[in-house]
Amino acid sequence: MIRAGILITGTEVLTGIITDRNGPWLSEQMRAVGLQPAQITVVGDRPDDVLNGLKAMREQNLDLIVTSGGLGPTADDLTAEVVGEFQGREMALDVPLEGRIPAILKGLSSRWPNLDMESVLAANRKQAVVPVGSTILEPVGTAPGLIVSPGGEQKGPIVIVLPGPPRELQPMWRTAIKTGAVAELLSHAPTLDREMIRMFGIPESELAASLRKIEDDGVDLSRLEVTTCLRRGEIEIATTFESGDRRVYASFLEAIEQIHGPLIFSRSEATIDDVVSELLEGKTIATAESCTGGLLSGRLADKPGASAYLLGGVVSYANDVKTEALGVDADLLSENGAVSEPVARAMASGVLSKLGSDLGVSVTGIAGPGGGTEEKPVGSVWFAVTDGSDWLVRDLVIPGGRADVRDRSTTVALHLIRRFLLGEHDDPAS
Amino acid sequence: MIRAGILITGTEVLTGIITDRNGPWLSEQMRAVGLQPAQITVVGDRPDDVLNGLKAMREQNLDLIVTSGGLGPTADDLTAEVVGEFQGREMALDVPLEGRIPAILKGLSSRWPNLDMESVLAANRKQAVVPVGSTILEPVGTAPGLIVSPGGEQKGPIVIVLPGPPRELQPMWRTAIKTGAVAELLSHAPTLDREMIRMFGIPESELAASLRKIEDDGVDLSRLEVTTCLRRGEIEIATTFESGDRRVYASFLEAIEQIHGPLIFSRSEATIDDVVSELLEGKTIATAESCTGGLLSGRLADKPGASAYLLGGVVSYANDVKTEALGVDADLLSENGAVSEPVARAMASGVLSKLGSDLGVSVTGIAGPGGGTEEKPVGSVWFAVTDGSDWLVRDLVIPGGRADVRDRSTTVALHLIRRFLLGEHDDPAS
Repeated sequence: MIRAGILITGTEVLTGIITDRNGPWLSEQMRAVGLQPAQITVVGDRPDDVLNGLKAMREQNLDLIVTSGGLGPTADDLTAEVVGEFQGREMALDVPLEGRIPAILKGLSSRWPNLDMESVLAANRKQAVVPVGSTILEPVGTAPGLIVSPGGEQKGPIVIVLPGPPRELQPMWRTAIKTGAVAELLSHAPTLDREMIRMFGIPESELAASLRKIEDDGVDLSRLEVTTCLRRGEIEIATTFESGDRRVYASFLEAIEQIHGPLIFSRSEATIDDVVSELLEGKTIATAESCTGGLLSGRLADKPGASAYLLGGVVSYANDVKTEALGVDADLLSENGAVSEPVARAMASGVLSKLGSDLGVSVTGIAGPGGGTEEKPVGSVWFAVTDGSDWLVRDLVIPGGRADVRDRSTTVALHLIRRFLLGEHDDPAS
Repeated sequence: MIRAGILITGTEVLTGIITDRNGPWLSEQMRAVGLQPAQITVVGDRPDDVLNGLKAMREQNLDLIVTSGGLGPTADDLTAEVVGEFQGREMALDVPLEGRIPAILKGLSSRWPNLDMESVLAANRKQAVVPVGSTILEPVGTAPGLIVSPGGEQKGPIVIVLPGPPRELQPMWRTAIKTGAVAELLSHAPTLDREMIRMFGIPESELAASLRKIEDDGVDLSRLEVTTCLRRGEIEIATTFESGDRRVYASFLEAIEQIHGPLIFSRSEATIDDVVSELLEGKTIATAESCTGGLLSGRLADKPGASAYLLGGVVSYANDVKTEALGVDADLLSENGAVSEPVARAMASGVLSKLGSDLGVSVTGIAGPGGGTEEKPVGSVWFAVTDGSDWLVRDLVIPGGRADVRDRSTTVALHLIRRFLLGEHDDPAS
C-alpha cells in the first residue's frame, strides 16, 4: 500500500469562510491511481501550522503528501517556502519561470481592463521563487505547482505542491502524476477496484441490518472495504477491494440485490442525474416549480447536452404566476391551497401544455421556516409527473431545514421522473 | 488562547464520496465562542486512524477536540469506543439512554412504513453504549452525542463527540457549549472580533498590492489577522483581531475604502444574496434564464420570506420557450442568436410583462463545453436588468467549466440587480 496525505492550507478554509473542494477531489483521484488516502488535514496560513501538518504526516510514514493552496501572490501565501524548509532545500528564483510570468498575466489584463499591471507583476514575481531542485508544474492560472523530493540525505515523503483554485489544481494534478518522482512512485501502486451501489427509499440503519445478515450468510466482507453513506436522501454503498476479490464483490452485490433490489437505482458511478438524463433520451421535459424555485430545472440543466431534453420551465413562486403562466385554476388554488395534490397535477399538466414538452413535472411544498400548519407541516411537498395521460403523484414530509427540504425535493422529483420513465404509473382508478 | 481541533471521521468523506460540511461549520462556530481552531483533520473509519488523529492533536497541546461522525448504527461506526480508549475510559451500556431509543425511533417508523422495526432497534441499541463518566448530549436524530474528559489521572483535551449529519450536529454543538466541562473551558476564552469586507470586480493580486501599500502607509497589519480569498468570483477579506485593536481595524477599513470603495458591496457578514434581498424590499422581481436553467431564481428563493419579492420566472432553455413563454421575437433570435444583447433585453422585458413584476432580469449564455464559437466563446454570457424603462445590460466572458460559468453567472446577475437598485442605469443614448 502506498499511503498518501492531503494538506489543505488556508485560513479561509480553516475558519469556514470557504468550503474545501480539493481534499475530497484529490482523495478520489488518489484511489483511482492506486494510492490509499490516509488523511486530509486543513491548517491555517501560519507557517508553523503548515510545517507541523507536514511533520505529522511524515511521522505516520506516508509516502506522498499533496498540498493545496498558499501559492498566490499575497504575503500569506507561504506553502512553497515551508515545503522547501520541510524537505531541507534552499529557496531560489527560477529565472526561466520568472520570464514566463508576464505572458501568463496577459490574459488577466484583457479580463480586467483597469488593472495596474506593474503592481500585479510585482505581486506575481514572488511565485517564481521555488525550492532548489524541485520539478516545476506549469501554471494553469498564474501559480506554478511543484514536486519536491526530500533534499540531500533526508528520507520521507515526496511533496506535490498545488495551487488552491480547483480549476488550476485539477489539471496540474493530472500532470503531476505523470511527472518524475511521482510517476516512479505510482508505478509501484497496486490496482484497487471501486464499485458503487446507490439506493433510494431506505434508512441507513435498515441497511446495517442487511449487511450483518449478508455476513452471517457467509459473504466474506473482510475482503471488501464497504462504506455506506447517506447523501441528499440517498444511500451510497461504496466498496473498495483488490482485483483478486472481484468474486467476493459479486456475491455481495447479489445478496444486496436479493434484499433491496427494487430500491437500487444505480450499480455504477452513475448518479440519479445521470440515470434520468439517459432515460430522457428522445423525450423532452419541462418543470413547474414552487418551493424549489428553479433548483430542479437548474439540476436538469447541469449536464452538458441537457438542451436535448430540457425545454425549460416555469418558476411559479407566487400564486398569480401559477394561474397566469401555468393556467392553474384560481378556484382550485383557493380551495386546496398551493401545496396540494390538485395544484401539483395542474402545475405539471399546465407546464406540459404551455411548453409543449413530452413530460411535465411539478414540485409544490412548504420549505419553511414559516408557513407550516398542523395539517401541512413544514417539509410537506407534493410532486406530480405526467405525459398528459399517465400520472405519478406523490407527497412527502421532508425533514430538515429550508435548504434541506428544497434540495431533497429535487432528488425526490428526479426519482419520480425515473420511475415514471421506467413505466411506473398510478392506477387511474385511485 | 484556547486552541481546538476538529476530527472528521468517515471513509465516505475521506474518499471524496461526500463533501464534509461539518469541519468548516464547526470552525466558524469555534471562533464565534472565542476558540482558535488549529486544524481540521479527516480520517477514515479505521479505529487506528481515528486514534492517531486524536493523539496527533493531543501532541499539539490542543485544549478541545470535536469529532464528527461514526456514531451511527452500522459496524463501521466506532467513534465513541475509540474516544473512550483515548480518554482511558471503559465502555458501558447507559440504561436510561437505551430506554429512550424506542421513542426516538417512533418518528422513523412513521416515515418508512415498510420498516423491519426489530432489526432497526437492534442496530440502534449499539448507540447507547458509551464511555463511563461521559456527559450525554440528547440525540436530535437517533445518535446521542458525548462530552468525554480525560479519565483518571490522565491529562489532555476534552473531546466532544457529535454525529455526522449536519442537522443533528449543529443543534447538539449548541447544547455542548453550554454543558459541563465545555462551558467551564469556554468561560476562560478571550473575545476575538471578526470583521468582513466583500468586494466584486478585482483580481486577488491587485488587492495584494493594496495591502502592501496600506502597510507601507503605516497601518499596523501585524495587529490584525487578515485573510483574503476568492469565492464565487468575489473577494472576501476576513479580519480577526483582539477587541483592543478595533481602532487598527478601523484604519485598515478606511484605507481599503479609499482605494477600492466602489467595489465594496458589503462591510459585514451580509452576502450579495442578503444585500439584494434587502434592496428588493417593497419591490417584486422575475427571472428569465437560459444557461443558468433556474439557478438564479433558485438562489433568489434561498432566503426565508423570499416570496415577498420573488414572483417567479421562466426557464427558457429552448428557443421555442423564449418565443412562446417570454414573447421574444423569433426573427430577433434567428438574426442575433440566443446569446446576444437584443435577446437578453427581450427576455428581461418579456418576463417583466408576462409575470407583472417591478423588475425583470435575464441571463443568456454559453455554459459549454460545446456551443462556443470564435466570436462567442464558451463562457460568453449576456445579462439584462430592467424596470420597464431603465436598463442595465452587460456581457462577460466567464472563465472555467460548465458549472463555474453557470454558478458565476448567478453571482454576476445578483451584482447587476444590486447596482440597478442603487440607481446605476445605462445611458439611454448608448
